[in-house]
Amino acid sequence: MKGSQVETTPSQAKDKLLFTPGPLTTSRTVKQAMLRDLGSRDFEFIEMVRDIRTRLLAVGGVSTAAGYEAVLMQGSGTFAVEAALSSTVPKDGKLLVIANGAYGERIAQMATVLQIEHTVLRSPEDRTPVPAEVAAALAQDARITNVAVVHCETTTGIINPIEAIGQVVQRSGKVFCVDAMSSFGAVPTDLVASGIDFLVASANKCLEGVPGLAFVLARRDALVATVGYARSLSLDLLAQWRGLEANGQFRFTPPTHVLLALDQALRELEDEGGVAGRAARYRANYATLVEGMRALGFVEFLAPEQQGYIITSFRYPADPRFDFEEFYARLNRKGMVIYPGKVSRADCFRIGTIGRIFEADVRCLLAMIRETIADMGFHPTRGRA
Amino acid sequence: MKGSQVETTPSQAKDKLLFTPGPLTTSRTVKQAMLRDLGSRDFEFIEMVRDIRTRLLAVGGVSTAAGYEAVLMQGSGTFAVEAALSSTVPKDGKLLVIANGAYGERIAQMATVLQIEHTVLRSPEDRTPVPAEVAAALAQDARITNVAVVHCETTTGIINPIEAIGQVVQRSGKVFCVDAMSSFGAVPTDLVASGIDFLVASANKCLEGVPGLAFVLARRDALVATVGYARSLSLDLLAQWRGLEANGQFRFTPPTHVLLALDQALRELEDEGGVAGRAARYRANYATLVEGMRALGFVEFLAPEQQGYIITSFRYPADPRFDFEEFYARLNRKGMVIYPGKVSRADCFRIGTIGRIFEADVRCLLAMIRETIADMGFHPTRGRA
Repeated sequence: MKGSQVETTPSQAKDKLLFTPGPLTTSRTVKQAMLRDLGSRDFEFIEMVRDIRTRLLAVGGVSTAAGYEAVLMQGSGTFAVEAALSSTVPKDGKLLVIANGAYGERIAQMATVLQIEHTVLRSPEDRTPVPAEVAAALAQDARITNVAVVHCETTTGIINPIEAIGQVVQRSGKVFCVDAMSSFGAVPTDLVASGIDFLVASANKCLEGVPGLAFVLARRDALVATVGYARSLSLDLLAQWRGLEANGQFRFTPPTHVLLALDQALRELEDEGGVAGRAARYRANYATLVEGMRALGFVEFLAPEQQGYIITSFRYPADPRFDFEEFYARLNRKGMVIYPGKVSRADCFRIGTIGRIFEADVRCLLAMIRETIADMGFHPTRGRA
Repeated sequence: MKGSQVETTPSQAKDKLLFTPGPLTTSRTVKQAMLRDLGSRDFEFIEMVRDIRTRLLAVGGVSTAAGYEAVLMQGSGTFAVEAALSSTVPKDGKLLVIANGAYGERIAQMATVLQIEHTVLRSPEDRTPVPAEVAAALAQDARITNVAVVHCETTTGIINPIEAIGQVVQRSGKVFCVDAMSSFGAVPTDLVASGIDFLVASANKCLEGVPGLAFVLARRDALVATVGYARSLSLDLLAQWRGLEANGQFRFTPPTHVLLALDQALRELEDEGGVAGRAARYRANYATLVEGMRALGFVEFLAPEQQGYIITSFRYPADPRFDFEEFYARLNRKGMVIYPGKVSRADCFRIGTIGRIFEADVRCLLAMIRETIADMGFHPTRGRA
């Protein structure tokens, strides 16, 4: 390997801290787990995949014995959401999308592209969907077969009441799909109590693996009922499950290194005390962030009772000396990566409190924000209504 | 991270050598490039993605100035093949699939699932498709709009004559898609001379990156003509390209670590002398393998003039003491991973000669095969016709 370079060994480069919705900061040990090449038919790899599937179900509080299955899917979380929808809505079915942000809207957009008949029940971005309205929508249209909702809407950081919605959906006998991308692993989720048939999440959010793999936790009876529904070969959820069950192998080349990282990440989740332990750290991160940001004069977009501890939207200061792109770039140069907003009718930026970051990291971020405010010379509190 | 474990640091575990069609053995330095967490909106990441796209085009001997574009796609190679087909065949179009193996058949299967009208021109697995037959098929059915073929059919290792086929397709004015998954980077491919509109390949084959990302090299005029064709949100090739062009970012979370590995892998390809240099190493691997296997008494499935240097199919010895599963498991325990066969009407196994392996590794494999023959007590030459 004459002349080849590694620019990027840990000793040479310090990574920025990622206060984003993902990709996130992961532990050194999770990344080191990728320093191997495993064959995808190798006994060791097959064993690891089986183990990962079992442990993902356990994170969701279910098991194969309880009638649930974990189906891994290559690609980003959106690929798995599309797999879950395009493989589970019957060809003549109709989908009810419950939306209060960009990720709910993305599901609706998916349904449009996939030519799945659908209707959208919208709430404002700063309000959670009302279960009674879901019940009314279902009562009004008997043709609806499937219902989809996002758990933590990353647009704002709001946490939607999936358990109450799920009970309504379950009573009506519809199939319930939850996009739990940015909550799974850190917000306790009871698949049984919430009547969830399909829950979608990713290796790279609160599980703190690396991006490149997502998964669907499925109620087995609901999954095996979807014969002939798939609208794609790659994103065929039932075929993917059957492949994994048949011989433990993926149908198509798996991202072996990403799976090695997920295996290690799941160990570290267990070491931290599982979902409860991780939730405690993220909640502390969030509390430190919000307290510090308020002290600096920033205002959250959501009311505190709507706000999860995953990601928080802050309103742009009205001071004309505030410019988000400059604010972002300056913080970036100080090693702190925040995220632009996605709220449709308010100017916001977002700060995530998930990934392998701790309260001390959040305090560093707050110090760098304080510096940046001074450098740019704006007042977060000035001019607000 | 109390109690967390890394079972798998390089000092503790020696990886097996992978003589497979992928996932493959990669260099230590490619894997070490993944020891970082980059934000997907980060300037450094965006710059790296732009650079990777430019260099992928260069590996294909083209450039944006020459009218070509590189579109990266999350997932395995099959995801990108599906993206290339489902995004480029018009809704009322018809696809001609040229097939002489499992990967050609997979394209036909994809078309079936996607409800794309198609016809399959089949040749036996040990024969390359005949360009005159492609011309006849196109002349016979004016409704055909798109043609797809596999370059190196990994089923057998045969190399299909994409340049001669491409000239026929180009003369007929059809859109030409080549699945160059296991050839790209090691078998010289002239997109212009072969009239290729869409070429699909993966980060993890001859480019020697890690799995989890694939890509399509597209003739820009052919790509921008596909407005409204996509049958999926995730696998929408045109939208993916527009996203990358708009702000350098992926539409959906990219596998950042896989991209870091690909960046390093492309450097190492350049250091090796590009496609010519890599081809020379693989050709030497193949020559050493075939010479050694013949000396042991094994027989290749293909005639040498059909056989590429990517992967080679060997017939099962007729000796009843040969059992492939046992042969595989014994070699595996000796640290050598070979691959089962995929030929439909002959019992074969396969040995790949790509990835970060060298002639010395092939000689080790041959020595371990010799040992395994002695351990199992079969004679590769006994009982052959």
